[in-house]
Amino acid sequence: MKFCCNCAAPVAKRVPPGDSLPRWVCDQCGEIHYQNPRLVVGTVPEFEGKLLLCRRAIEPRYGYWTLPAGFMENDETTAQAALRETLEEAGARVEIDAPFSMISVPHVNQVHLFYRARVLGLEFKPGEESLEVALWEEERIPWQEIAFRTVGLTLKRWFADRGRGAFGFHAEDLQ
Amino acid sequence: MKFCCNCAAPVAKRVPPGDSLPRWVCDQCGEIHYQNPRLVVGTVPEFEGKLLLCRRAIEPRYGYWTLPAGFMENDETTAQAALRETLEEAGARVEIDAPFSMISVPHVNQVHLFYRARVLGLEFKPGEESLEVALWEEERIPWQEIAFRTVGLTLKRWFADRGRGAFGFHAEDLQ
Repeated sequence: MKFCCNCAAPVAKRVPPGDSLPRWVCDQCGEIHYQNPRLVVGTVPEFEGKLLLCRRAIEPRYGYWTLPAGFMENDETTAQAALRETLEEAGARVEIDAPFSMISVPHVNQVHLFYRARVLGLEFKPGEESLEVALWEEERIPWQEIAFRTVGLTLKRWFADRGRGAFGFHAEDLQ
Repeated sequence: MKFCCNCAAPVAKRVPPGDSLPRWVCDQCGEIHYQNPRLVVGTVPEFEGKLLLCRRAIEPRYGYWTLPAGFMENDETTAQAALRETLEEAGARVEIDAPFSMISVPHVNQVHLFYRARVLGLEFKPGEESLEVALWEEERIPWQEIAFRTVGLTLKRWFADRGRGAFGFHAEDLQ
């Protein structure tokens, strides 16, 4: 951030009165430009015991496998974001179940949130951001080719919970 | 948003190539300025069966009672944000327990997240954004003077869960 998006004057980073953290502040119009973490929301889509993964057609981690997920948009709920991302990236219609994992990733200022979901049919197909979409049995999950640590952790927790016959909600942090 | 914070040229709202939603786009430097929901994180701080509430010293809802909560900052985890806000607004040291409620508030582009927490001592005191801080029994909660619907809903769910002897995780939406 170099300029004020409100008046185009240069901004400076300093602690505003009454605040405790440095912010981008505009000395011309007085606007304080806060920057906050973003939510990445997706699903763990299940179909007859197998999980639906997408192979990424974009950077970062081009060619690696991931769960359908993406940045939550304004004007939507977390569940709507999860449904939308699953449709966009995997072409899959799903029924959203409970939230399953919430993982803070402070070094990139993100919180990743995954819902359990049930795939409603086999007519899924890769969206613009995916090379391919496929259902994977637990024994065949490509663990060495998983795109992100939050996805690997979520898959691991999902199979563990299924193994013990009860799905929980997992709140964790990546450091 | 009127100007590009990267190069100070005027921005226009339109759908970028490959995207599906209108964004603020800079035609001079090419920057796309995404806007996303923000996380408001706090606690339900409990001490010997009573809950700690703060009376707001700031707008909106000046003078109304709320749970300690605020915007999550960059470089922190959700649990760290909950701990920090509880210390800032209520001067209270707490031990963070599990996430308790997560409520989407799409009309203000926010997601509110509350953790259960245990107050570690009675030396709490109002921070700069609070007029007073007090412990409330269930029978005396000032339901007519609660600042936000997400706080009222979270308190209601907390007392209901306590009543049945088991705390869950509540994911909901306000429309």
